[in-house]
Amino acid sequence: MSTFKELLVEQLSDIHSAETQITQALPKMLDAASDPDLKKAFSHHLEETRAQIQRLEEAFGELGETPSGKACQGMKGLLKEGEEALDKPLSGPLKDALLIANAQRVEHYEISAYGTAIAWAKELDLDEVADLLDESLDEESSADEKLGSIAEGGLLESGVNEEAVSRR
Amino acid sequence: MSTFKELLVEQLSDIHSAETQITQALPKMLDAASDPDLKKAFSHHLEETRAQIQRLEEAFGELGETPSGKACQGMKGLLKEGEEALDKPLSGPLKDALLIANAQRVEHYEISAYGTAIAWAKELDLDEVADLLDESLDEESSADEKLGSIAEGGLLESGVNEEAVSRR
Repeated sequence: MSTFKELLVEQLSDIHSAETQITQALPKMLDAASDPDLKKAFSHHLEETRAQIQRLEEAFGELGETPSGKACQGMKGLLKEGEEALDKPLSGPLKDALLIANAQRVEHYEISAYGTAIAWAKELDLDEVADLLDESLDEESSADEKLGSIAEGGLLESGVNEEAVSRR
Repeated sequence: MSTFKELLVEQLSDIHSAETQITQALPKMLDAASDPDLKKAFSHHLEETRAQIQRLEEAFGELGETPSGKACQGMKGLLKEGEEALDKPLSGPLKDALLIANAQRVEHYEISAYGTAIAWAKELDLDEVADLLDESLDEESSADEKLGSIAEGGLLESGVNEEAVSRR
């Protein structure tokens, strides 16, 4: 039998595993990207992810716990899909569009997982833990928006998707 | 070498596989849930998911294509995680809270995947395809919000999370 706090610790272990897996995947995505803004976004998010892992470790410290080390199966599946994308014989904006599609799925996993953990931490009156996670959630949401804007472009510049239309 | 339209067809095949996997998982989640609103939400979303598969098939029809049948690895991972949650010796609000956590991860996969496919379809001037997908995206976003409100409750009723705090 578990308590709600024990389930929260499991959620944080899951996110810790997910973030750790992401630090291994992002350098490959960065290498495969062509668009300079996309490369910069991946590189920036790799630094953020490392900081997020430290924040999770702070949260574990607050709780007097340690990550279980159990692999996050959800992220494993998402990154398996990401590997398939990396292996596809594509280049330029087509490859970039596919990398963004996969990276946004990864961001959404994190957005959902942090959202759950924050709601649970608040319900348990663990405000310092919730604040730490909130900071990371903001970064994940911004990373997702940034990827979307690189794909879709803006008034003054064409996005990756627009460039992909005429390529093969 | 692929064209952007071929990549869109692959995205739609991925979503088609994901939705099909979800129709197999939802009945188990419905059975495991205790909260009547949560049971209702899973049952309603099962119907929606079946309609979403039909909409995807309409979209394939518009494109003169058929789903590849390739398994969506991302959803496979998410549902593997969901199975782990189903197998946990929990009941009542603790089980419900965990089911919601997993279901929201699944919804977020869909939100991200439909978001990508809609952006690509619009870029390719495939407005009828984009409109079909848009309808499903709205349903996924509403399903995610509904799950969040069942977890967090409201002014007049306690949510699943609040009830989970005192249980084991």
